[in-house]
Amino acid sequence: MFLRNAWYVAATKAEVADKLVARTIMNEPVVVFFNGRGEVCALEDRCCHRGAPLSLGCATETGIQCGYHGMMFERDGSCSHIPGQTKIPRNAKVKSYPVQQKGDYVWIWMGDPQAADAAGIADYPPDDPVAWPRANDMLHLRASYVMVLENLMDLSHLSYLHKSSIGSSESDSANASMDVSRTERGVKFLRVMRNADAPANWRKRYPTGQKVDRWSDFEYLAPSVIQQFSGGVNAGDYDKGVREGAHLVRTLHAITPETEKSCFYFFNKADGYARFEAPGTPRTWASTSDVFKEDAHMLEQQQLRLENFDASRLIDINTDVARVQMIRALKERIQKEQASKEERLSEPTIQQ
Amino acid sequence: MFLRNAWYVAATKAEVADKLVARTIMNEPVVVFFNGRGEVCALEDRCCHRGAPLSLGCATETGIQCGYHGMMFERDGSCSHIPGQTKIPRNAKVKSYPVQQKGDYVWIWMGDPQAADAAGIADYPPDDPVAWPRANDMLHLRASYVMVLENLMDLSHLSYLHKSSIGSSESDSANASMDVSRTERGVKFLRVMRNADAPANWRKRYPTGQKVDRWSDFEYLAPSVIQQFSGGVNAGDYDKGVREGAHLVRTLHAITPETEKSCFYFFNKADGYARFEAPGTPRTWASTSDVFKEDAHMLEQQQLRLENFDASRLIDINTDVARVQMIRALKERIQKEQASKEERLSEPTIQQ
Amino acid sequence: MFLRNAWYVAATKAEVADKLVARTIMNEPVVVFFNGRGEVCALEDRCCHRGAPLSLGCATETGIQCGYHGMMFERDGSCSHIPGQTKIPRNAKVKSYPVQQKGDYVWIWMGDPQAADAAGIADYPPDDPVAWPRANDMLHLRASYVMVLENLMDLSHLSYLHKSSIGSSESDSANASMDVSRTERGVKFLRVMRNADAPANWRKRYPTGQKVDRWSDFEYLAPSVIQQFSGGVNAGDYDKGVREGAHLVRTLHAITPETEKSCFYFFNKADGYARFEAPGTPRTWASTSDVFKEDAHMLEQQQLRLENFDASRLIDINTDVARVQMIRALKERIQKEQASKEERLSEPTIQQ
Repeated sequence: MFLRNAWYVAATKAEVADKLVARTIMNEPVVVFFNGRGEVCALEDRCCHRGAPLSLGCATETGIQCGYHGMMFERDGSCSHIPGQTKIPRNAKVKSYPVQQKGDYVWIWMGDPQAADAAGIADYPPDDPVAWPRANDMLHLRASYVMVLENLMDLSHLSYLHKSSIGSSESDSANASMDVSRTERGVKFLRVMRNADAPANWRKRYPTGQKVDRWSDFEYLAPSVIQQFSGGVNAGDYDKGVREGAHLVRTLHAITPETEKSCFYFFNKADGYARFEAPGTPRTWASTSDVFKEDAHMLEQQQLRLENFDASRLIDINTDVARVQMIRALKERIQKEQASKEERLSEPTIQQ
Repeated sequence: MFLRNAWYVAATKAEVADKLVARTIMNEPVVVFFNGRGEVCALEDRCCHRGAPLSLGCATETGIQCGYHGMMFERDGSCSHIPGQTKIPRNAKVKSYPVQQKGDYVWIWMGDPQAADAAGIADYPPDDPVAWPRANDMLHLRASYVMVLENLMDLSHLSYLHKSSIGSSESDSANASMDVSRTERGVKFLRVMRNADAPANWRKRYPTGQKVDRWSDFEYLAPSVIQQFSGGVNAGDYDKGVREGAHLVRTLHAITPETEKSCFYFFNKADGYARFEAPGTPRTWASTSDVFKEDAHMLEQQQLRLENFDASRLIDINTDVARVQMIRALKERIQKEQASKEERLSEPTIQQ
Repeated sequence: MFLRNAWYVAATKAEVADKLVARTIMNEPVVVFFNGRGEVCALEDRCCHRGAPLSLGCATETGIQCGYHGMMFERDGSCSHIPGQTKIPRNAKVKSYPVQQKGDYVWIWMGDPQAADAAGIADYPPDDPVAWPRANDMLHLRASYVMVLENLMDLSHLSYLHKSSIGSSESDSANASMDVSRTERGVKFLRVMRNADAPANWRKRYPTGQKVDRWSDFEYLAPSVIQQFSGGVNAGDYDKGVREGAHLVRTLHAITPETEKSCFYFFNKADGYARFEAPGTPRTWASTSDVFKEDAHMLEQQQLRLENFDASRLIDINTDVARVQMIRALKERIQKEQASKEERLSEPTIQQ
C-alpha cells in the first residue's frame, strides 16, 4: 500500500538533462523528461496506441513523440498528433503526473493532481556549493522503501553495520540521549552521544583519538523523505553551544517505491567541513556511497528473509522508539487516504 | 490461446543438421532432429520413463535414444527398445508431431495430426541463390508472437523506429496509398509511396538523393507467417509498370510462439539487386539483422508495458487498418478451432 | 512435502570452519556456525528484531551477534543481549536446530528437537585418510532432492549418461544381476556385472582391456542418504570371493532439500586403490566431480520437463526396481510423520 497524494523524487535533474528517464514508480511505468522548452514533464510510459514505451521516442518542443508509430503527446498527456490522420479520438491520451523541480531533483505526485501543492516538497538546505559542497547518488534496491526508512530511524545500527566507517562504539551508542517527537509532517528525533570516541571515518579530523560530542538531528517528512542534520564537536562543547569548527553534515534521504519489494534510494550529502578548509581542497565522496552500500546489502537480504514470513513474530526494542513513531505516522496517512477514497466511492450520485 | 491446427517453423534445416534441437513450442517441449536415415522427426522432448529430455540423447537409425536410461523411440513416438527387458508396455510412448521440410525450414504441426496437410505450408519464393541470394536469422524474443505480426502489419513504424535505416520520412509515409483485402488465408495489403525520398539504407543504390517510388506487398498467412514483396524504382516508374533495375526484396517472416509471452522470430531475406550486379559481388546481411534488432528491443519493452494492463485502454488509428484485419483473421480461426473442439467433446457417445 | 524428523547434511565442516554459512533448508533460512568455544550451532537466519540475517553478523563466545542492531543469541536461540536495554522480552528468540558433527559434515535436524537422536546419523566408513584417501564436493542443483536419489537408485543410467567415463556397455548393464531388499532404514541393493568390460575411467588399472567383475552395493538410508560400496576385480574373482587388489570405492551421497525444486548434493568419495599404491601417489578428483556434473545437467533439465506436467503419464521399467522401493520407503515415512502430526493436533485438551 502506498501513499499516493505526496511528492516523491522521480529522478535527479542531471539524469533528466541527459536522457528520457524511464522509471517504474508504484508499479506504474513513467517517463520523465524535459521538452524542447525546458519544461519538465512526467507521463505514463506507455503509448495509448500499442503500449510502446514513450521513453524510446524523443522529446518535442512541447511534449514527446512515440518512437514506434509517431504519435505525439503534450505535457498534460493529451494526444496532439497522429501521423496520417487529422482527427484525434477523445480517448487518445496517456496519464500525466504533476511534476516539480526542487533542489537537485525532479519530484513527482502520484495521486490526485488537484491535490498537488508544490509547497509540500521538502527543502534541502543548504544550497551553497562553496561552503557546503554536496554530491548525490542513487541505489536501486530490491527492498521495500519502508525498510530503508526504518533503517534510518534507528541509528543504533551504525555501531554494528557501519562499525568500521561511521559507527561509534556500542557503549557510546547505548549511552546516547534520544528525544523523539511527532510533528505535523512526521517525526523528529535528536540523538546525542557525549564524550564519545570519534568514528573511523572522522580520523582525518580527530587523528589523536580525542573525545567528541556527536549528534544526529533527523526529521522524517512522511511518506518518504528524511532530512538529516548531523555534527560533531570537541567533547564538552555540544552542551555549551560551541559550534566553531564543527564537523557538520546535511543529508537528504528520499526513497521512492518502485514496487512493494523494490525502491530507488536517492541520497544527497552536503559537507560542512568545507567552511573551515582552504577553497579547492579535494574532497572524496566514495566513502559516503560505500557506507550506503553496506545498508543496501543488509536491506536486500532482510527483504528476502521477510517475504512469506509472519512479521508479527518480530519484536520491537528500546532503540526502535523513533522507527515505531515513523511507521505509525506513515500508516495513519495511508489509512486516511484509503478511507477518503472509499468515502468518495460511496457518495450517492445526485439525482437530477 | 494458440491456433494448433497450423504449420509453424520449428527450426532452420541448418540448425537441425547440426544437432538435436530442443525448443519449447506453445509451452510444449519438442525435440527436432534427423534420424540416421535422414528423415526429419519431431517428438515430445520428455522421455516417458523419467521425464528426461530426449534432446540430451542421440539419434538412432530410425528414431532417438534417451541419454538417461537408454529407451528408444521411433518417429511416431512409440517405444521400440527398453534396456534389460523385452516387453514394451502399451503406454511406453511420447507424443509425436507431423513435420515437413520446405524452403530453409523444418515446419511442425502442433494440432490434430489427422488434419495436417503439407500443402498448407507457405511457399517461399524465390529459390534462386544466384539472382536472389538469401540469408536467414532468428531472434528469440520475450514478446508475444502476435506483437511481432502486428509490428509487420503496420509499416508506418518504419518512419520512426527505423528512421535511420529503412524508414521513409513521416510525410512520405503519411501520403502512402494503402490497399487492404481479406484473403482465404488471411490478409493482403499493398502500400505504395510515390515520389518519395530513398531511405538511408538505399544510399548505395540512390546516392544522389533521387526520388523513388517504393512499394510493399505483404500477405499474412494465418496464423504466423507473413510474405513480404518489397521494391523500389525511379520516381514515376511504378505506375508505368517499369521494373527494370528495380530494388527488390523478398522476405519470409515466420513467428513461432514459445509461450504466451515469448516467441522465435525467423526471417529470411532474398535480395533481388543481385540480378543487376556482377556475379560474386560481396553482400552484407548485417544491416538486415540490425533493423530487426531495433524491432526486438521495442517489442520486448512493449510486452512489459502490456502485462497486467487493461489492453482495452488502447486505441486503433488509421494506419492500423491491415493490423486490425490481421487480428480479426487470427481470432476467427482460433475461435473456430475452439468451437470445433468443444463440439467434439460434447458429441454423445454412441450406445451399442 | 519433506520428512522433518531426520538428519540432513547442513554443510561441510570445512565450510563452517571458514565462515558463518547461510543456507536455506526446506524453505527455512538457517545459519550454521561455530561459536567461540568451537561448538557447532544452527539457528534461524533471521533476527527476531527486524528480520536481518544473523549470518551477516559474527560469532560470539557462546552464540552469535546480529550485524544490524547488535542483538545476541545463544545456541538454543534465546536472546541474551539487547543493546541499550536490560530487559529481554520473553518472545525475543529465534528458532534453534539440533546439530551434530560426524564424518566431514555438520548434520541438522529440521523436525521436533525432542526426537533428535544422533545415533541415527549415517556412518561414513572408512575414516582412514592414508589407505582410503577421500575428497568431497557439493553441487547446488535446481532439481528436487528426490530426483537425485532416484538417479542413484537406478544405475542403468551409467551406460548412457556416463558412457564415456564410468559406464559399462549396454549389454553388460542389461546382464547385471540385481538383488533388492527393504531394510529397517530404507532399501539395499546389490548389482553385479560379471565378465564385463572395464569402463573408460578404469583404463589406468585395466589398460589391456581385461574383463572384470564389477559390483555396486548401495544402501538407501531414508530420507536422503545413500551409502555406496563399489568395486571391481578380475573377471571370475568376484564369486570366488577374491578381493586382493580390488578396485574399491566408498561414496556417501547426502542430498539436502533447499526447496521443493532445488537441493544441495553433497558427495564424498574414498578411494580404496590407494591401499595398493605407493604412499603419496598423486590422485586427482576432477574426474569424480565431472561425472556428477553430467548428472547435474540431466537432473536440472529433467526438473524443468516435469514442472506443470502430469507425472502419472510416466512409466516404470524393470531397472526401476530399487528406485520404486526407495520412493515407497520415503513416502511411507512422510505419510507416517504427517499422520502423527495430525493425531497430535487432534488430541483432546485435558480438562482440569
